[in-house]
Amino acid sequence: MREIREPSELKKMSVRELQALAGEIREEIIHTVSEQGGHLSSNLGAVELTLAVHYVFDAPEDKLIFDVGHQAYAHKLVTGRLEAFRHLRQHGGASGFPQSDESEYDAFTAGHASTAISAALGLARTRDIMHGENHVVAIVGDGALTGGMCYEALNDAGRTNTRLIVILNDNGMSIAPNVGAMSRYLTHLRQSKRYRAVKRGIRRGLSRIPGVGIPLFHFIERLRDMLKSLLVDGKFFSALGFEYIGPIDGHDLKHMIRVLKRTKDSDQPVLVHVVTQKGHGYRPAENRPDAFHGVAPFFIDSGEVKRGERVPPCGRVAARQLAEMAEMDIRICAITAAMPTGTGLSEFAKAHPDRFFDVGIAEEHAVTMAAGMAAGGMKPYVAIYSTFLERSFDQMLVDVCRNSLPVTFLIDRAGLVGADGSTHQGVYDLSYLRLMPNMIVAAPRDVRDLKKLLSLSAEISEPMAIRYPKDGDDMGPGIQSQRDFRVGEWELLSSGGDVMIFAVGRMVQFAMQASIELMGKGLSAGVVDARFVKPMDEKMLIEQAKRVRLAVMVEENALAGGFGEGAIRILEENGVATDVMALGVPDRFIGHGTIAEQLAECELDAYGIARRILARWKEREGRADA
Amino acid sequence: MREIREPSELKKMSVRELQALAGEIREEIIHTVSEQGGHLSSNLGAVELTLAVHYVFDAPEDKLIFDVGHQAYAHKLVTGRLEAFRHLRQHGGASGFPQSDESEYDAFTAGHASTAISAALGLARTRDIMHGENHVVAIVGDGALTGGMCYEALNDAGRTNTRLIVILNDNGMSIAPNVGAMSRYLTHLRQSKRYRAVKRGIRRGLSRIPGVGIPLFHFIERLRDMLKSLLVDGKFFSALGFEYIGPIDGHDLKHMIRVLKRTKDSDQPVLVHVVTQKGHGYRPAENRPDAFHGVAPFFIDSGEVKRGERVPPCGRVAARQLAEMAEMDIRICAITAAMPTGTGLSEFAKAHPDRFFDVGIAEEHAVTMAAGMAAGGMKPYVAIYSTFLERSFDQMLVDVCRNSLPVTFLIDRAGLVGADGSTHQGVYDLSYLRLMPNMIVAAPRDVRDLKKLLSLSAEISEPMAIRYPKDGDDMGPGIQSQRDFRVGEWELLSSGGDVMIFAVGRMVQFAMQASIELMGKGLSAGVVDARFVKPMDEKMLIEQAKRVRLAVMVEENALAGGFGEGAIRILEENGVATDVMALGVPDRFIGHGTIAEQLAECELDAYGIARRILARWKEREGRADA
Repeated sequence: MREIREPSELKKMSVRELQALAGEIREEIIHTVSEQGGHLSSNLGAVELTLAVHYVFDAPEDKLIFDVGHQAYAHKLVTGRLEAFRHLRQHGGASGFPQSDESEYDAFTAGHASTAISAALGLARTRDIMHGENHVVAIVGDGALTGGMCYEALNDAGRTNTRLIVILNDNGMSIAPNVGAMSRYLTHLRQSKRYRAVKRGIRRGLSRIPGVGIPLFHFIERLRDMLKSLLVDGKFFSALGFEYIGPIDGHDLKHMIRVLKRTKDSDQPVLVHVVTQKGHGYRPAENRPDAFHGVAPFFIDSGEVKRGERVPPCGRVAARQLAEMAEMDIRICAITAAMPTGTGLSEFAKAHPDRFFDVGIAEEHAVTMAAGMAAGGMKPYVAIYSTFLERSFDQMLVDVCRNSLPVTFLIDRAGLVGADGSTHQGVYDLSYLRLMPNMIVAAPRDVRDLKKLLSLSAEISEPMAIRYPKDGDDMGPGIQSQRDFRVGEWELLSSGGDVMIFAVGRMVQFAMQASIELMGKGLSAGVVDARFVKPMDEKMLIEQAKRVRLAVMVEENALAGGFGEGAIRILEENGVATDVMALGVPDRFIGHGTIAEQLAECELDAYGIARRILARWKEREGRADA
Repeated sequence: MREIREPSELKKMSVRELQALAGEIREEIIHTVSEQGGHLSSNLGAVELTLAVHYVFDAPEDKLIFDVGHQAYAHKLVTGRLEAFRHLRQHGGASGFPQSDESEYDAFTAGHASTAISAALGLARTRDIMHGENHVVAIVGDGALTGGMCYEALNDAGRTNTRLIVILNDNGMSIAPNVGAMSRYLTHLRQSKRYRAVKRGIRRGLSRIPGVGIPLFHFIERLRDMLKSLLVDGKFFSALGFEYIGPIDGHDLKHMIRVLKRTKDSDQPVLVHVVTQKGHGYRPAENRPDAFHGVAPFFIDSGEVKRGERVPPCGRVAARQLAEMAEMDIRICAITAAMPTGTGLSEFAKAHPDRFFDVGIAEEHAVTMAAGMAAGGMKPYVAIYSTFLERSFDQMLVDVCRNSLPVTFLIDRAGLVGADGSTHQGVYDLSYLRLMPNMIVAAPRDVRDLKKLLSLSAEISEPMAIRYPKDGDDMGPGIQSQRDFRVGEWELLSSGGDVMIFAVGRMVQFAMQASIELMGKGLSAGVVDARFVKPMDEKMLIEQAKRVRLAVMVEENALAGGFGEGAIRILEENGVATDVMALGVPDRFIGHGTIAEQLAECELDAYGIARRILARWKEREGRADA
């Protein structure tokens, strides 16, 4: 596409020129995502919306806040980031999310859902206190609207007379098809006469783009699933104190520009309901918007993903086994927060639709709902990514652990996550789980042990967390544990005379490699798989640490409050004189790149682990000599 | 009052008898709370509602879930807990909140707001899977309804056909006068013809109770503050898929019983809007419901609190100083989540109403809103209790710390909290704050240092947390620090030859006392005030630890991930050979009692600290001898 250095360039364009630019942006997005992977469907849907917003408002003076950021690619492309965008999600390239340290046009860093209205209200109130004149615009998807924070913010904003513009980008589908009553409500609004006219407009507009034709609107079927009792348009939002405008066609630039201009004159909070089509302009994504939500590199012509997964993801493995376990145990049910595919739970849903619950982007509710089910006698499994489970910290602690209820957390995307970067790192869970009384915290070293842990969980009547990365490596039969294990039981994988490495989860394989490297340097290092971070195998920890001169804890988690600190305290309080060190993620946010790059940056790859151990060894030798 | 062993006894009573019982329950509640302190206004408002619910439903088969639990006293009194209630909030007596380990009638443990609908939905779904027949009833105050979790749960429940009954106990005021658009919406509903009829009914009912008369309805004034555009009753809830019934008079037993019976036949989620009066039946509480929300022991006749506060609470001290600081700095603003009085911020609100924001029970939104304000150039202070700030864990980490925004957290009720018990302990914050990159974590040892930390915060452009207990002790000029301190700077208070105690916050005074006790046992122990848990004063830590034979870390926080583990890791990684130990809150939930009892239970009072140190000292002497 042509380069747009700053969004003011758009203001000189005619609507026709903007439409042409929209086509170029789409091509650029499709091309880049087909190479690098990324979020496609939602970004394709928001191209005209983004152009209209930048045409009407004056960023960076006017503050634009994109919720989550799954719709911010076009925004990046018209704010001078074309080159960075071509290295999307790569180390040194553009982040997949809006980040205020990447561009002054990103008024607020996003990544987790449902925060935009809160942040925008903060910026709007700041403007009022400072007697500023600028506009504040939050762009929120309908999926994010299932998150309670949005409601908290709408409720707070709605009582004020603060000028604030919320654009609801409604593509009838968050990540997975949208759930909940709000979704039905939006469906109802869409079904109104006005919406039908809008839809005809979209259809006409589409038919003008060569090679696209009239698309299938998947949500048409879902229109039937509506509330008969609802007869008023936008009353939900006006009940919350917002002026409601819409629904309007999110692919009709001219109309959107006219409506958005009008919002500038409002002196109260306004919600503009814009209807867009996920995947708009790229047929494979239009037909299967969920498959192209977050997607690996693919062939543009066919829409086929370029190469199959190296290994089946942990989540899918876990979900399959859980579905089998549920055959025998009616108490087993599964809960996800808008991530049936990402967490693998769709496999469970197929087998047991009556015991599967997708509650929407609502992690807090998901956990307390699970606690309620457990209180009633069920055995719920809650599958949420490590970074999003942070949202449920209080619910895990107070509602689950306080009552020691048998809820099992399947924590996906734990550890360093690669391209999603700083807002998505799953490197805090060992710390925030360890501090919860009654919680069992486990991390399998590979997919075989994940299965064993899952089997074990069925027998446990306390809260339990199993955290694992996306990819389900199999470390092979060579170091396969020979039998099932008990809660709190670690495993000695290899002995060493000088150093013992206690490693957690995926770190076990790197520790093994590091021990081989160290052998080459004349250092004998053994490895223990410390698969239970809580309770720890104190007996093995103390015994094995006593046999060596340096005990090393390795975890893919923040050092603060993690496994290492906990293990060191046990050693010290038991008077073990062995030197210790803890390796983990340093106390800073790790940006996007490949997982390998991030591991190297944290010195948590085999080479980094070996190097750190060697350096420490030399230091203590030096002390011994002195 | 007469003893009610189980709620089935109510079913044999006539409405007239139930009314008499309501009077007895009120007297019992007023008497007990006047002796022990507790939550008065909301509990007085919910007496008839509770009797009606128990009359209509069959607990414990039918599951009753009280949100927060500020309205569960009457429930306790009719479920065989009269004697325990007379020792309310005392060690061994009844908890101030519903707790499933206290009674089978408490279907779910509560304490934090807005969880009841989620838990109830979990129990309802369990019933459906198990083909049960029981009813599930959530009783939720209008204040809790400002919490996003409620919306997440309503949204999820509203799309199902699960039988679920939500009773909205609307007293027009949560803890402080309710805020937000939802509050206005409820006000509108109240203003309807039907509501006015209901209100007349309440008035008539009241006039029949001798000595009470027609009360002032404070919320009448607030009725004016309404949305003209809202013309439909209950549409907000029906938009979310609930059958809406109401509003009905929450003090008219007969009518409530009739309506609640009707809900049993519904095969969809139902919301019953019940209007009650906070403080109903006790004039001082009716007149000042917020003053009697959570109240210290008082004289029943006058409503006067029995004895003044021993010292001004930390929160009030901080708020006053903040108000002064805000005179000079327009960037300073203050945010609370429905706790203007509890956090002391009402002092700030008086001075700077335009820079004070009470967002309702919405901690998540509060923090991200603050992040938005900080991104816009403000210097926001967010005052939330330690236990409730857990709700904002993710927002602090991702929205504040990821962007290193200058938001300062004033964390009240940190450490052990006494009578509120296990669901309210503020003993996790040092752990959950320490793991956040860019966060400065401080704990003043007394109210003087709190003021100094607050002054310091004004100069800081990173996120900062200051945690303190409710009471603002002043340790006196004897150990008053002579000058202001820098970030990360600790203070050596006394030297010792054998032991050095590194203590945090309120623990400093107990450490000083312990050092005196130890002196009597022939052990020389010094004390360092480790007022910054992050960053730590590594230089002082290492230097002072090296000089002694035992370094002891003391914190009023969970051991897991806390100050002690962090300090020990630093010592060990720097090759300090001194023995170490960490004292803190053990890995279990600490029940209600006095703070002194809880400190003793955790061995964190001066005696406990001294005893633990002595035991450890003997152990290491033993090792040295062997």
